[in-house]
Amino acid sequence: MKKPKDKIRVKRIPKRGIYDKEEIYSILDKDCVCHVSFIYEGYPVIIPTIYGRKGNKLYLHGAASSRMMTNLAKGIPVCIAVTQVNGIVLARSLFNSSMNYESVVVFGTAKIIEDEEEKNEGFIAITEQILKGRWEEARVPNKKELKATMLLEVNIEDASAKRRTGGPGDDKPDYELDIWAGVIPFQRTLGELEPDPLLKEGIPVPKTVKTLYQNEKQIK
Amino acid sequence: MKKPKDKIRVKRIPKRGIYDKEEIYSILDKDCVCHVSFIYEGYPVIIPTIYGRKGNKLYLHGAASSRMMTNLAKGIPVCIAVTQVNGIVLARSLFNSSMNYESVVVFGTAKIIEDEEEKNEGFIAITEQILKGRWEEARVPNKKELKATMLLEVNIEDASAKRRTGGPGDDKPDYELDIWAGVIPFQRTLGELEPDPLLKEGIPVPKTVKTLYQNEKQIK
Repeated sequence: MKKPKDKIRVKRIPKRGIYDKEEIYSILDKDCVCHVSFIYEGYPVIIPTIYGRKGNKLYLHGAASSRMMTNLAKGIPVCIAVTQVNGIVLARSLFNSSMNYESVVVFGTAKIIEDEEEKNEGFIAITEQILKGRWEEARVPNKKELKATMLLEVNIEDASAKRRTGGPGDDKPDYELDIWAGVIPFQRTLGELEPDPLLKEGIPVPKTVKTLYQNEKQIK
Repeated sequence: MKKPKDKIRVKRIPKRGIYDKEEIYSILDKDCVCHVSFIYEGYPVIIPTIYGRKGNKLYLHGAASSRMMTNLAKGIPVCIAVTQVNGIVLARSLFNSSMNYESVVVFGTAKIIEDEEEKNEGFIAITEQILKGRWEEARVPNKKELKATMLLEVNIEDASAKRRTGGPGDDKPDYELDIWAGVIPFQRTLGELEPDPLLKEGIPVPKTVKTLYQNEKQIK
């Protein structure tokens, strides 16, 4: 990753800016849903989608006929954001109230992957990002499905992250006010598992799902 | 809101597309964090930020010196997305595996609000979107803070929403496979409240926060 350039440097509150590669990767690895932005007919467009990371690449997939996919495949600039909201920070003043969050913004260009083996690797990366081990459990894509699905590889050319943690920081005189302050933390938790009503009899909950529920407390 | 145009029409799986104004508003009202995209020096840029909705307007705020705010204030096109991820849909085949989600994509242009009363209304909308009633509890912005904060109003010119709910839909022959299928639902839950250690003695948890925790089960 290159040094922060003007495009990517965190402008507001630079102390919240993170440019370390491993730290950026670790934020990307906590999620599997991103927002992708590109320019379409002169307008900025955002589409939420899932992704997988492998090394310095992000993989996106979609129907080969999708507008986002066919446009990105042309190699136009793309911006991808991943954001976790971790809580509401209530200061005594509204001005100092804030959110706790971690976010990454990536700039790059997409490249279509057509080599069958590479394409498979990309799909594995996306599947594993969503649920580790699922690739081994489910029916993998057949030739027709592979053809219907486009895989894009985005090399992370520039990236930065921003993070806010901790409690409120009020202006000194405001500490005297009779106003409550603190943090309302958020977390993403798993709801009760919903097996498909059409499940064949005697099929147990698979290892991937069991492991996820066992680790629930680590899920954000 | 106008009829879906080419820019906004949901292209993939059109049955998931929603263009009803009230339904779009109701999705926007479940959250307070959005992703904002605009074009900066020829590149698409995404920034996560908080918002408030009032009628057909979205309000964004930020430091008057922020790059996003000063650029959007010029009246360039802006795209705003709000996405809730509600679960992983595990089909027997990876091809039919999916996510449950609700998302809204809004197109518009931003306008800077400088009239003091209107500006206050916008800040109230943002505060109320985060925590209903907080405006009445906290110290409201003073003249200096109001000056340091820019308020933008985005009229929702076009919008569409997309939603997936329910269980997996596999190809007919796949139902015979010995593969588990179902949904892993996600929800956003509140963690244990973290009062500011510098809180003055005897200040009780305010009504807004109590109400939020009481309604926790409704929080997504």
